[in-house]
Amino acid sequence: MISVGIVGATGYTGVELLRLLAGHPQVEIAAVTSRADAGTPVADFFPSLRGRVDLSFVGPAIQELAHCDVVFFATPHGVAHSLAGALLEQGTRVIDLSADFRLRDAEVWAQWYGQPHGAPQWLEEAVYGLPELNREAIRSARLLAVPGCYPTAISLGVLPLLEARAIDPVDIIADAKSGVSGAGRKAQIGSLYAEVAENFRAYAGGGHRHWPEIRQTLEQAAGGSVGLVFQPHLVPMIRGIHATIYTQPLDAEMDFQALFEAFYRDEPFVDVLPAGAHPETASVRGTNLCRIALARPVESGRLIVLSVIDNLVKGAAGQAVQGMNLMCGFPEDQGLVGAAVFP
Amino acid sequence: MISVGIVGATGYTGVELLRLLAGHPQVEIAAVTSRADAGTPVADFFPSLRGRVDLSFVGPAIQELAHCDVVFFATPHGVAHSLAGALLEQGTRVIDLSADFRLRDAEVWAQWYGQPHGAPQWLEEAVYGLPELNREAIRSARLLAVPGCYPTAISLGVLPLLEARAIDPVDIIADAKSGVSGAGRKAQIGSLYAEVAENFRAYAGGGHRHWPEIRQTLEQAAGGSVGLVFQPHLVPMIRGIHATIYTQPLDAEMDFQALFEAFYRDEPFVDVLPAGAHPETASVRGTNLCRIALARPVESGRLIVLSVIDNLVKGAAGQAVQGMNLMCGFPEDQGLVGAAVFP
Amino acid sequence: MISVGIVGATGYTGVELLRLLAGHPQVEIAAVTSRADAGTPVADFFPSLRGRVDLSFVGPAIQELAHCDVVFFATPHGVAHSLAGALLEQGTRVIDLSADFRLRDAEVWAQWYGQPHGAPQWLEEAVYGLPELNREAIRSARLLAVPGCYPTAISLGVLPLLEARAIDPVDIIADAKSGVSGAGRKAQIGSLYAEVAENFRAYAGGGHRHWPEIRQTLEQAAGGSVGLVFQPHLVPMIRGIHATIYTQPLDAEMDFQALFEAFYRDEPFVDVLPAGAHPETASVRGTNLCRIALARPVESGRLIVLSVIDNLVKGAAGQAVQGMNLMCGFPEDQGLVGAAVFP
Amino acid sequence: MISVGIVGATGYTGVELLRLLAGHPQVEIAAVTSRADAGTPVADFFPSLRGRVDLSFVGPAIQELAHCDVVFFATPHGVAHSLAGALLEQGTRVIDLSADFRLRDAEVWAQWYGQPHGAPQWLEEAVYGLPELNREAIRSARLLAVPGCYPTAISLGVLPLLEARAIDPVDIIADAKSGVSGAGRKAQIGSLYAEVAENFRAYAGGGHRHWPEIRQTLEQAAGGSVGLVFQPHLVPMIRGIHATIYTQPLDAEMDFQALFEAFYRDEPFVDVLPAGAHPETASVRGTNLCRIALARPVESGRLIVLSVIDNLVKGAAGQAVQGMNLMCGFPEDQGLVGAAVFP
Repeated sequence: MISVGIVGATGYTGVELLRLLAGHPQVEIAAVTSRADAGTPVADFFPSLRGRVDLSFVGPAIQELAHCDVVFFATPHGVAHSLAGALLEQGTRVIDLSADFRLRDAEVWAQWYGQPHGAPQWLEEAVYGLPELNREAIRSARLLAVPGCYPTAISLGVLPLLEARAIDPVDIIADAKSGVSGAGRKAQIGSLYAEVAENFRAYAGGGHRHWPEIRQTLEQAAGGSVGLVFQPHLVPMIRGIHATIYTQPLDAEMDFQALFEAFYRDEPFVDVLPAGAHPETASVRGTNLCRIALARPVESGRLIVLSVIDNLVKGAAGQAVQGMNLMCGFPEDQGLVGAAVFP
Repeated sequence: MISVGIVGATGYTGVELLRLLAGHPQVEIAAVTSRADAGTPVADFFPSLRGRVDLSFVGPAIQELAHCDVVFFATPHGVAHSLAGALLEQGTRVIDLSADFRLRDAEVWAQWYGQPHGAPQWLEEAVYGLPELNREAIRSARLLAVPGCYPTAISLGVLPLLEARAIDPVDIIADAKSGVSGAGRKAQIGSLYAEVAENFRAYAGGGHRHWPEIRQTLEQAAGGSVGLVFQPHLVPMIRGIHATIYTQPLDAEMDFQALFEAFYRDEPFVDVLPAGAHPETASVRGTNLCRIALARPVESGRLIVLSVIDNLVKGAAGQAVQGMNLMCGFPEDQGLVGAAVFP
Repeated sequence: MISVGIVGATGYTGVELLRLLAGHPQVEIAAVTSRADAGTPVADFFPSLRGRVDLSFVGPAIQELAHCDVVFFATPHGVAHSLAGALLEQGTRVIDLSADFRLRDAEVWAQWYGQPHGAPQWLEEAVYGLPELNREAIRSARLLAVPGCYPTAISLGVLPLLEARAIDPVDIIADAKSGVSGAGRKAQIGSLYAEVAENFRAYAGGGHRHWPEIRQTLEQAAGGSVGLVFQPHLVPMIRGIHATIYTQPLDAEMDFQALFEAFYRDEPFVDVLPAGAHPETASVRGTNLCRIALARPVESGRLIVLSVIDNLVKGAAGQAVQGMNLMCGFPEDQGLVGAAVFP
Repeated sequence: MISVGIVGATGYTGVELLRLLAGHPQVEIAAVTSRADAGTPVADFFPSLRGRVDLSFVGPAIQELAHCDVVFFATPHGVAHSLAGALLEQGTRVIDLSADFRLRDAEVWAQWYGQPHGAPQWLEEAVYGLPELNREAIRSARLLAVPGCYPTAISLGVLPLLEARAIDPVDIIADAKSGVSGAGRKAQIGSLYAEVAENFRAYAGGGHRHWPEIRQTLEQAAGGSVGLVFQPHLVPMIRGIHATIYTQPLDAEMDFQALFEAFYRDEPFVDVLPAGAHPETASVRGTNLCRIALARPVESGRLIVLSVIDNLVKGAAGQAVQGMNLMCGFPEDQGLVGAAVFP
């Protein structure tokens, strides 16, 4: 049994983390912080948690979190930069769901996030929390950088190909589609029901912050430079990411289905569908699963990878819990075994 | 540990029942039947169950179900009439999610379902499976009739008032709204996305089969005749029922909030919200909860009860599992404790 | 050909008004004001109007509107109070889509809107713009108060019954459901896609500002006191209102279908459906129509009226244009004849 | 004023065609046929047309259509093969919204549609009805093959680049997303609300019938072979197509924005957005417009074209009316000028 704290649990990532941790048999939630809502019962904020989470928010002071074994950050970028160091120095392990420690290069971070990196001295310590890539490093991590949602869906779709050196690494196109919860629980016109429903559009045509993160992961897997086009889109749905990844195989005759099945055979949260299937986001709703299928377009040498996740689970809170399980020596799938809620 | 069978699990009630039973620590799913799909893996039908349910459908023969301790029917009406008797005679307990054994009067059943009642000899045995009304009878039931979705949401909203003789029993209006999964997984134009989305309408203005069922429950609670108007509507959403119930208090000064809180104090699955709150269907999505709140309209003596459930859980599969837990001596909330998936 | 101005066209009512006026053969849009967005092309704000409306917003000064024959207010309440007088005094006719002049009693207005009425001297002049009730007065109006969305749907459903003295006037219950565009284009958490989609809830259980407006209209029709319960709900859809109105006929044997058909025979925008039908909001999407049907609940003397409108058209911008047509001597349906966009 | 007939107007394309033609000032709808629903008023089938279309369906006999100047087919493939010839021979012009005459090569048609081409003798006569490509030929056409929805969105996005020989013609990837009305008004599980809502998936990974049609158009524009990857996806919305097209410019420094603006300067229904914009499907809902924008991905030489249409209008019924206008010498945009219904 461990004691955990959550900093900044008033957004969608936060409520999903609370849902998962409230159902985890080895976790006691000790403190949930929110500067603006200190004193308010968490369940007033999220009626879905009534009777499941009985805490009130507390202010985000370090002493509130002092007795926690693990502290999660579900905050906008920049916050973990300020607070993680003090927690780490007192021996608390930190699992950061924000972007603060995902990029290894502080300069690249500053360029994409428009402000200086606030804690470059901790970058060495940070482990990128994609278990399918870094499982052993995660087990001993003190500071875990939970991957972004798009990077998770896309990286899992390309890793087997890059590690096998099976595709041209400089010709990868990831056309990605996300439900609107990925934009967070912010009061903004662009996320209103009347703007999003019955509508579909691309965004960030000029570049998205997840692009350098995905490239970094793919380059680790490829052992060299990667050329990546990444175009995100907004889907009129709450949860789910679907990545459609266009690759150029080096050997068009290779058995890619067998390659993927072998690569992910022992992974508890990656499910390679049979040949000819198409994964759908609803099939992973509320779960930590990534489902993948392959397609071969007509009269073309290309290979298409279709990859789906729930952006709030495998793309955020679930992957954070998976990382916590590894860091704490719990079974990797503990608290994460429920089937998808369908329909 | 018990062994259970499910007859007819190819619809939405069936897949929800499979999801819940697959996560229940004391249940082994032994057989899932479907005449049309015998031989097909259940997970081919419902990709959401891949890796969680590894069975294939079998034909609906009695011998396939012979070794089950409990058999669930998630079938259209009429099927349990044909098959339940043989199971009961061999000592298997039956939990019927269809309408076959909900009405105590075979004549009324025949009138509303347009065919003779197929098993009137078992009506005496059947227990109406609303734990908040019939908990003790359910514990010893051999044949459980799981309530309909509308009847559950509406009955739970009115029971405290009728048992306390606090309202005029002949002036009850239930305006109910349901997500479209209530219409089942049938290929019909009226349930297509393009017909349902961005649309709202009433239906069954001439009378709905749940009307006599609700009246029967309310009359049991009132100890006499009840006058009920029930108008259902279709909401462009997958899951959820919201009942808005207009009642006429006998004493307008009564403390109804206190009445409801006292009535449901020990109920694990009924949550009375604080005064002034409005329950929302998303707060119970995927859970077995009913959330209730009260409103007092301006310059009127009436009392409005707002009641929400997930039609596939407390309105079907979850209430069936709650009933099974009672029948089998398990903790009443076992397998039913997860928080709602929100957003 | 008339010249019109619009004050405050940055919300959903405003963009719908622009859509309708841009297609009206006798209207030239001369000025569209917005304090915050002066200088911005209207089509930058609303890409749906690119190529159809070529104006830019101007600041809301009276001189910008001086040359207009008619000025529409699509503003929050309180704004027309400040500006309408000056326009009226210079001879400009005003069509106010806000609540500022709907209630005849300034005290009641102040009580429900939480501030003093800002222009009580103009109340005498104001005409409530429901053509089915006040057509002749509208023709000569200088200041038109366009009815609210709920009041339109509910009033049209009850008018025939009250004018015929066919129901008990003190026992009217209106259970109303609205799409989320009714909440306007405001950046607020409660209107986010992830909060509204796949969710249904009641709101304003403690009283809604449209209640005194509806009561005022019904009392005009009834020629006396009316008892009204009004409970609104939020539907996960963009447009549409469905009112389900429970009434108590004085003579249960009356031919209500014939009553409604006769009452609305010559109305261009009220469509009484055949007996047994159920109106759906999608059938009026984008149109100025109100469709109505009747239902008789089982074993009850009550009569249910089902009434649907598009809240942004017959519930706002369309009814404003209908009023303008009457005020200007144009054909009443000019610019309003397109069929609903379905699906 | 011309007299038109419609064969098979019981689907979504049919009802949209009826909506547009009912509002067209030079068209009288003389006959609407449906074998299964002969005798039924069209408005019983589509309540959105009550008061706008007063016809009843008639059986699909040629004599019913004998007096029509133009006959539209809104039928499944194969039907126009059987009936178009007799109409053409009697001098009636035919506008076919199905796939029957889109492919110039009867063998390719047979291969993709799984049956022999039923009217190869009329292929010579057929004109592919994309005005932006074939305007002059359309003016004199007797048999018009209205393009498919995906082909329209994708072809309009690539035509300027291919005609200018500005991209590598063998490296075009079209990732396309469609609302579910594209699947038609068929009672099938896969189109149910509960399957489509809150879900996103690819389909036809093994090849889609629109692929040879798109390739044919692109090859006409390129004047040579084209290599095309086309992957469609299903979006939880009713209407709209968004194509994201990845191309490889031959000269990365070319001013593509200027190229597109010049190419479409005089087109009434193609709107090139300013640099940096992202078109959204809601901005063209109910209209005949295609809106296009360009994006340049980070650290890549590629050019992305974003193209949106309403699949039922520019992708079907609207383009058919545009073609009719050209064939009949009417203004090209007649009956097609309304702004999009937003929100």
